[in-house]
Amino acid sequence: PIFGIAGAYGVALATRSLPASLPRPAFLDALQEEAMRLAQARPTAVNLRWAVERVLLAVREQATVPEMQRTALVEAHRIHQEDEEANRRIGRLGADLLPDGCWVLTHCNTGALATGGWGTALGVIRTGWAMGKVRGVYATETRPLLQGARLTSWALLQEGIPVTLIVDSAVGALVHQGKVGAIVVGADRIARNGDVANKIGTYTLAVLAHRHGIPFYVCAPTSTIDLSTPSGKAIPIEERSPQEVTHMGWGWAPEGQIHPLAPPGVSAWNPAFDITPSDLVTAVITEAGVARPPYEQSLPALLGKRR
Amino acid sequence: PIFGIAGAYGVALATRSLPASLPRPAFLDALQEEAMRLAQARPTAVNLRWAVERVLLAVREQATVPEMQRTALVEAHRIHQEDEEANRRIGRLGADLLPDGCWVLTHCNTGALATGGWGTALGVIRTGWAMGKVRGVYATETRPLLQGARLTSWALLQEGIPVTLIVDSAVGALVHQGKVGAIVVGADRIARNGDVANKIGTYTLAVLAHRHGIPFYVCAPTSTIDLSTPSGKAIPIEERSPQEVTHMGWGWAPEGQIHPLAPPGVSAWNPAFDITPSDLVTAVITEAGVARPPYEQSLPALLGKRR
Repeated sequence: PIFGIAGAYGVALATRSLPASLPRPAFLDALQEEAMRLAQARPTAVNLRWAVERVLLAVREQATVPEMQRTALVEAHRIHQEDEEANRRIGRLGADLLPDGCWVLTHCNTGALATGGWGTALGVIRTGWAMGKVRGVYATETRPLLQGARLTSWALLQEGIPVTLIVDSAVGALVHQGKVGAIVVGADRIARNGDVANKIGTYTLAVLAHRHGIPFYVCAPTSTIDLSTPSGKAIPIEERSPQEVTHMGWGWAPEGQIHPLAPPGVSAWNPAFDITPSDLVTAVITEAGVARPPYEQSLPALLGKRR
Repeated sequence: PIFGIAGAYGVALATRSLPASLPRPAFLDALQEEAMRLAQARPTAVNLRWAVERVLLAVREQATVPEMQRTALVEAHRIHQEDEEANRRIGRLGADLLPDGCWVLTHCNTGALATGGWGTALGVIRTGWAMGKVRGVYATETRPLLQGARLTSWALLQEGIPVTLIVDSAVGALVHQGKVGAIVVGADRIARNGDVANKIGTYTLAVLAHRHGIPFYVCAPTSTIDLSTPSGKAIPIEERSPQEVTHMGWGWAPEGQIHPLAPPGVSAWNPAFDITPSDLVTAVITEAGVARPPYEQSLPALLGKRR
């Protein structure tokens, strides 16, 4: 969600950085170009494109540049605020589904830093904690960029929610030992058939949850559902720099803290996301309600409720 | 295997560091104490205890300290040499089972640096490469200690075998996309029923191999098989320092390259191994032959052949 919110504010900023003296059609053309550049920055995510297009649509209805500037910012604020409200509804609906007194496993970061303010999967955990249903959280470190170690664990510490960090490969032993009552994750895109694109490693979590009879919940606003994507096969997967794998800190740490982890000349494959087939997804938890299989029916029904 | 070899040489060293003037019983008592300290350094591994006890047994048959010293070193050399020969037999037997022209996935490090000289799972890959059956290798980085990134990729580069590094959590996407023809791993201990203790993350690989119909081969010398361990439940799992998870480079990098990956105060769970149940193991490849289910019968039969 944060990408959508950032994209919306990006369009608002673009209305202020383009020359206000341009004639309306030329201004809109230039704005469209800036907006498309923003929308394509993250090919796997769908919130980003959705939010950028929503602001653009609102802007197009305005007659003058000052009106466009004001409208863009209002719409971006609205997207931001709606996302936080959606998060809180997701939190309530998801927390209701959690077993009492459980430890929850989550992957990557889906908290306040990644959303409008409450969190999606982490929102479910926060609400579940507030309700006394969640006893603690296992957070995967989420290599290569370590969003779990760096962000999720930080967010949970802020809330005083017990958090235990594990390497990604320890998930198998963890669920095998019965230490987890539910797995909750976010989503970058949900296809019409319920296939889910999310951070690399999500598919493995879903396979393990399935084998061990643990519920696997995908928590995301309805803006993440893309009915125009028939299945996971149609979702483009962003492949990122091999250096994120071969060098610790690449892209996020200060220069002095970037170190090679592998000998020079080793190549790496670094897909940022994977696809979890819908048959492994226990439920999709959105602000408009909880969708369960068959998703071809339940997801359009949810979107209908939203509109 | 390297731990067994190192343990054997350790006992040989102990025969030289203990006071040679001690009476024979006191000398043997002191040696026994040193040997037990070595044998217990790695509770999950079984080669270590096996090799230490084998040297101790040979030493006990000698009458004088100089004979004990010589015998211990001869026995340690023999264990070392036998391990390399066993590796080469494992390599041949395993390579025969690989599909032609495949990419192989491996986990952790099982090459020359971890064995007597050729490798177990990596020995299968090396022999398969020499036979023209292996096209390349996907190596998991193997967090937290990164044996795959630091050692396996280095060993494969030395051999000119194409290697692509992945984060541990990318295994799911990799096998889902059909990029892997076989998974080969080593073992720290194999129980009588075929359950396998190996580097954390092995269980997840086996679950994914099972789901995708990929053969999952465990490659280890017969000294890794412990018939006195009835099943994986009886294998102690070493839990290591949380700092290996929370700090990059902890325990292996130079001081200036150790950096926190998580905020202060985050706890971590860091099991060094996990248990793969025998029903997920396609075959156990040893120097004495290939064992297949039911392992309760095939493993003792292999050990019988060895003796």
